[in-house]
Amino acid sequence: MYTGFMGKKGCQNECTGGGYSGETGKEVTESFKASDLIITPATTFKEKPDPTGLVFGTVFTDNMLTIEWSLASGWEKPYIKPLENLSLHPASSALHYAIELFEGMKAYRGVDGKIRLFRPTLNMDRMARSARRTTLPSFDQNELLECIRKLVEVEQEWVPYSTSASLYIRPTLIGTEPSLGVKKPTKALLYVILSPVGPYFASGSFNPISLWADPKYVRAWKGGTGDCKVGGNYGSAIYAQQEALEFGCQQVLWLYGEDHQITEVGTMNLFLYWINEDGENELATPPLDGIILPGVTRQSILDLARNWGEFKVSERYITMSDLTAALEEDRVKEMFGAGTACVVCPISKILYKGKHLHIPTMENGPELTTRFLNKLSDIQYGREDSDWAVLVS
Amino acid sequence: MYTGFMGKKGCQNECTGGGYSGETGKEVTESFKASDLIITPATTFKEKPDPTGLVFGTVFTDNMLTIEWSLASGWEKPYIKPLENLSLHPASSALHYAIELFEGMKAYRGVDGKIRLFRPTLNMDRMARSARRTTLPSFDQNELLECIRKLVEVEQEWVPYSTSASLYIRPTLIGTEPSLGVKKPTKALLYVILSPVGPYFASGSFNPISLWADPKYVRAWKGGTGDCKVGGNYGSAIYAQQEALEFGCQQVLWLYGEDHQITEVGTMNLFLYWINEDGENELATPPLDGIILPGVTRQSILDLARNWGEFKVSERYITMSDLTAALEEDRVKEMFGAGTACVVCPISKILYKGKHLHIPTMENGPELTTRFLNKLSDIQYGREDSDWAVLVS
Repeated sequence: MYTGFMGKKGCQNECTGGGYSGETGKEVTESFKASDLIITPATTFKEKPDPTGLVFGTVFTDNMLTIEWSLASGWEKPYIKPLENLSLHPASSALHYAIELFEGMKAYRGVDGKIRLFRPTLNMDRMARSARRTTLPSFDQNELLECIRKLVEVEQEWVPYSTSASLYIRPTLIGTEPSLGVKKPTKALLYVILSPVGPYFASGSFNPISLWADPKYVRAWKGGTGDCKVGGNYGSAIYAQQEALEFGCQQVLWLYGEDHQITEVGTMNLFLYWINEDGENELATPPLDGIILPGVTRQSILDLARNWGEFKVSERYITMSDLTAALEEDRVKEMFGAGTACVVCPISKILYKGKHLHIPTMENGPELTTRFLNKLSDIQYGREDSDWAVLVS
Repeated sequence: MYTGFMGKKGCQNECTGGGYSGETGKEVTESFKASDLIITPATTFKEKPDPTGLVFGTVFTDNMLTIEWSLASGWEKPYIKPLENLSLHPASSALHYAIELFEGMKAYRGVDGKIRLFRPTLNMDRMARSARRTTLPSFDQNELLECIRKLVEVEQEWVPYSTSASLYIRPTLIGTEPSLGVKKPTKALLYVILSPVGPYFASGSFNPISLWADPKYVRAWKGGTGDCKVGGNYGSAIYAQQEALEFGCQQVLWLYGEDHQITEVGTMNLFLYWINEDGENELATPPLDGIILPGVTRQSILDLARNWGEFKVSERYITMSDLTAALEEDRVKEMFGAGTACVVCPISKILYKGKHLHIPTMENGPELTTRFLNKLSDIQYGREDSDWAVLVS
């Protein structure tokens, strides 16, 4: 068995000490183990779609990973089995109180035919943090990663033979407590489903998008859950997204505070490449102050840019008035969203206070946006060696 | 058939105009109809629990109401059928993006043997608002109420023969869109489950509770969903609730803003009965400014108190410094939470900035808290006639 993910010793910061349930007197299982996997794969197979016509997250592979947890017994053995509907008690806490979290990762088929994940330990770390925040059970992150690797291996023919498509991986952890008190769940289900995907936006990955910026809806706030990947952050955002569409824009530019800080774009982190107030070339993105999702693509863009050392790289606040001043003074070069689903996504227009602000991203190449896309793609599709790319098989 | 709920004409503010789906060219159903109910009740029955030993929301009745919706066809016929697990696609949008909402109501068995609901149209109105905010489908509120009435009628033996217990009703609406794009769902499921309940708090309904007030967690914020009954408001709250328990408190007192405004208590609205800054006897609760849930019990307490006309009744901001000043000057009479699950719940202690503030609610009777409880109970259990109580059968 491949054991590459298991190098670092398992139990990390989120693990609790003992292995004993005082309540039941029974031994509880602190984490499932990949070596306990019970694999009974599908014997009938769906037709694999043409990778050029894929709509994000609509087609799923033949199998899924499921792992059950209860307060009394801890984690059960992990299963890889045919994809099927979940059978959930109608009182399940995920359905009433949004005790739920997810992750988004991708497996890429490289130009050498090998399948790779991209910085998957960052997803596992974030998933552990989301679990803590939602009072869902902790687990050994390396064991989960190894289970996911095994699932992707089972489904390897579903990883598109294409360097503009990939296999999206959706780890999900939900509270299945079958009672209505608002409390930490005593039952949970971790599962992973896979979906072959093309570019996230129907318009194609490098058509620029327009944003609707209105302070009337706020995505996340200090003391909330904006820095975790939990369901509640998303459900509350769709109404604003609908309103953006009504105004002829594709995504919401989320503002925060009296000074209209720019925070995120739709479900992406945000980057501005500009000449800042001090006349320096600067790549800027909002800091991780509790309301920003710590995106893996965000982190990778910061790491790359800092490594290049060619311009200033800042995690800093940017307000709408900073942006409008820079636009008036012709100091804005490029603006883009960044996330696992879209990688990078250029921004060409912002509707703010009834005015259309033109962002000259496309006129400027977009040079830097393209450079990030190419660099990340080179790593993801194995055109360039990097320890960010982790082999599945 | 009893048609009491159908008096007001159906389609209210949330209904859309046409009845035609441009996308499919088929007729879509704007709302389900109670007259279409298909009732196939359980033929085996669970044992009904002793009403004195009930733990909130843990025991469910034999049957449930379910109604499916799709963008293509609109609403299907409503079903009353044996309670069973839901079969949900693992990509269902409720499980990933918390596209979900619920309501909480109760059916009471009166001293005359008749079963009553309490101001159920307020729940239906709020449910319609929550549906709009979460981009879930609209429906005719009177039709849903009639379906619920019918379900309670089918399950009437489950309404406890007790004036300290009731049958809790949990209408739930979830997105069942089976794909991962963050968008308005094209499929949804409305369902209602019933649970016989005693007092909400294990300590008994009139033991006072202690609160933990710390600004580090914020329940809701302007531009968010705090004024709707949606899952995301609750899942994010449980972590703070755990921390409250660690500090030896039972519930969280949710603060807001730099000035530490008092907003809600756990999952309840908050009331303060005091002598205000101007020396007036005042019953105060925070205003519905977007971060406060418009509770049915909250509204009823305001309505009762305004009708009595014996003291000032205010929807106003109260900060922690307003409260501490009033405590020092011995101006606080009673403080209590209010909600459907608990009705009213006296507060005796607040842990704030490391100090235990003693609230003299119990020393003062609690006279007003008790008066509200008795008045509401009298209406709910039919000891007093009121148009707030709506007969089920």
